[in-house]
Amino acid sequence: MPKIVDHQKQKEKLAEAAWRIIAEEGMEHATVRRVAKEAGISLGSLRHYFPTQSELLLFSMQLVLERIRKRASSLKLEGPPVEDMKLILREILPVDEQKRYETEVWLAFTVKAMSEPSLRKFSNEIYEETKSAIFFIIQSLENLGLASPNLDVFLETERLYALIDGLALHHLQKGDEVTPKLMESVIELHLESLCRRNS
Amino acid sequence: MPKIVDHQKQKEKLAEAAWRIIAEEGMEHATVRRVAKEAGISLGSLRHYFPTQSELLLFSMQLVLERIRKRASSLKLEGPPVEDMKLILREILPVDEQKRYETEVWLAFTVKAMSEPSLRKFSNEIYEETKSAIFFIIQSLENLGLASPNLDVFLETERLYALIDGLALHHLQKGDEVTPKLMESVIELHLESLCRRNS
Repeated sequence: MPKIVDHQKQKEKLAEAAWRIIAEEGMEHATVRRVAKEAGISLGSLRHYFPTQSELLLFSMQLVLERIRKRASSLKLEGPPVEDMKLILREILPVDEQKRYETEVWLAFTVKAMSEPSLRKFSNEIYEETKSAIFFIIQSLENLGLASPNLDVFLETERLYALIDGLALHHLQKGDEVTPKLMESVIELHLESLCRRNS
Repeated sequence: MPKIVDHQKQKEKLAEAAWRIIAEEGMEHATVRRVAKEAGISLGSLRHYFPTQSELLLFSMQLVLERIRKRASSLKLEGPPVEDMKLILREILPVDEQKRYETEVWLAFTVKAMSEPSLRKFSNEIYEETKSAIFFIIQSLENLGLASPNLDVFLETERLYALIDGLALHHLQKGDEVTPKLMESVIELHLESLCRRNS
């Protein structure tokens, strides 16, 4: 009987090994050799799936994005709008261990893509997809009549987007100061500041 | 006559070569061998100054910080307070080519320090020094009676700090969208939103 290998499973196993190494030792240690060893797979097999380190990193990031999309699409958005918006933003902030891993991969991928043309296209896609989600939040605030008068949707999208990515970066840098609780408080403060003052 | 070598100059030359490589090709290309070649200095001489890549990166980042401090201390702060605050924040945002280089080095250094214990201490120092500057801005808004009532200085410091670093990251990612002008508009909007509404 021929040996049946589930290719998708093998690739995910390799991607997860890469995540662990990136998170614990940094991007530059996630070499194909090291990842193969961590996953318990031969270097030859790894090269069969991912001829280069960039392809492995690309797949790892695709897997991260897939997981975020899956979680986002299964969110139960039934609360007051601003509460639902907080739930959506929580999906991209490193508020638990799984999301912290994802954020480590995102940062490593993003920085590497700045100097690696083969990763640029997907990096831009992630950037635009996240930006669209944030644009949607800002626009909803306005459409629902919750936003302060004269909200500049364009500037507010960039302001919230930069805030989210800055918080994620700070959490990776100083997780003991910029805790999940602090990040959530900052987001809450920010969303409130965007809303019409109830007088 | 003995050959006189200005050690500080040589080290700065190497640090600047490292900056160029980090900015143009990415952190992982800034190997000691590559930097020595770029600077036109022998590998042996480089190793004399910087036995490891981490020491070279540390010095490069120290040089960046020194330049920022020097610029900050020579700022002419004579305008209305909020204008002066914008001037201070402009010093750490990548609003021109020189500052963009500095931001590239900062990001490479920050990400590398996450997994390199020998860089952690200095990375924390930069983090705290920047945070203090931002805390000073928020506190000044309050002390001058410009801030909205009930400003939470602690949360607002993290909010502005994350916003700054998020903008810097986005500029490196998508400089054509997140232009110096856009970054400055977002900062202006943010500072205004922190100020008491003039009714």
